[in-house]
Amino acid sequence: MKRLLIATHNPGKVREYRQLLRDLPLELTYLDEVGITEEVEETGQTFLENAIQKAMGYAELSGMLTLADDSGLEVDALGGAPGVHSSRYAGPGASDQERIDKLLRELEGVPEEERTARFRCVIAVATPDGRLCAAQGTVEGIITESPRGEHGFGYDPIFYLPDKGRTMAELLPEEKNRISHRARAAHAIKPLLKSCGEEGTTNE
Amino acid sequence: MKRLLIATHNPGKVREYRQLLRDLPLELTYLDEVGITEEVEETGQTFLENAIQKAMGYAELSGMLTLADDSGLEVDALGGAPGVHSSRYAGPGASDQERIDKLLRELEGVPEEERTARFRCVIAVATPDGRLCAAQGTVEGIITESPRGEHGFGYDPIFYLPDKGRTMAELLPEEKNRISHRARAAHAIKPLLKSCGEEGTTNE
Repeated sequence: MKRLLIATHNPGKVREYRQLLRDLPLELTYLDEVGITEEVEETGQTFLENAIQKAMGYAELSGMLTLADDSGLEVDALGGAPGVHSSRYAGPGASDQERIDKLLRELEGVPEEERTARFRCVIAVATPDGRLCAAQGTVEGIITESPRGEHGFGYDPIFYLPDKGRTMAELLPEEKNRISHRARAAHAIKPLLKSCGEEGTTNE
Repeated sequence: MKRLLIATHNPGKVREYRQLLRDLPLELTYLDEVGITEEVEETGQTFLENAIQKAMGYAELSGMLTLADDSGLEVDALGGAPGVHSSRYAGPGASDQERIDKLLRELEGVPEEERTARFRCVIAVATPDGRLCAAQGTVEGIITESPRGEHGFGYDPIFYLPDKGRTMAELLPEEKNRISHRARAAHAIKPLLKSCGEEGTTNE
């Protein structure tokens, strides 16, 4: 079976992708399993640029078909911030709570109808011979005035899903994984990933 | 039949793509035919960045499946120059002859074995809903000491193909089109283009 390198050090993410891509004839592995210790820099201005940088960089390092993603929260009233800076919005060492506090401060006084936001995930897949695919998934929501819910991580407690009547952190993990921006991006990349994996790539 | 927008104002390029992609069930059109007059900027540092910018930009403007390419000459002894600046290497209004003269001056005294170079073409295909594919094609050659041949354009007269024993400008157009970097990129993008065109895109 063909192998697909997931460009992450996080075994949890690999498990999620195994689930999302289970109907493809691919054997998933990740950086630590194949012994890649070099880091590919993410210097892009967009999720797409970062996902492409990582997918291409690790495809070159590994010689394997490689998948990378980048994702974050875009708040319309803040011109799309925190965006690609979502995970370091309150500085490098800050906690989820500090990032949430900062975001709520920035949105103080902004009425509900202007607190629209979305989680966006971009997935890129690259081959060592320079072919590339990318697709994205989004989930639309509203930033609440205060956190609610115990599940998930990051901005989930202040991201309200009007369709569900709950914040992302009030969804059970299985439910979140079904509707998440990453699940939607994975669904959109599948037909492309098939073509990318099929041609010109050596079996390993 | 599904339509594919070729992001160019050049009918000659469209004819070439009609030939290269003739076995795909796509009806090719181009910017002037669909009445798009806005210009999408190319500000990238690489062929890939430029091809992606154009494909995504025109897919958004047109609402259509869109193909864009970017290509140029990379000379190893010049660290990959002229690269993305190939068509304006001797300034904005300069002629092919002036660009060739400049390149030969830059390579003065460089021995043959260090005059290696390649033509590279990157093709990107984007859908209005944010899916994206890219592939590349290259042709390896040697920069001659002086121009030879009357066909082609750009740097063709100083690009020697060891396999053919001739410069690119000494090849007949049909022969050049068969082995060109664009032909090779088109061949590589085909399976990806099929997937990109199939799913999630409306028939027009």
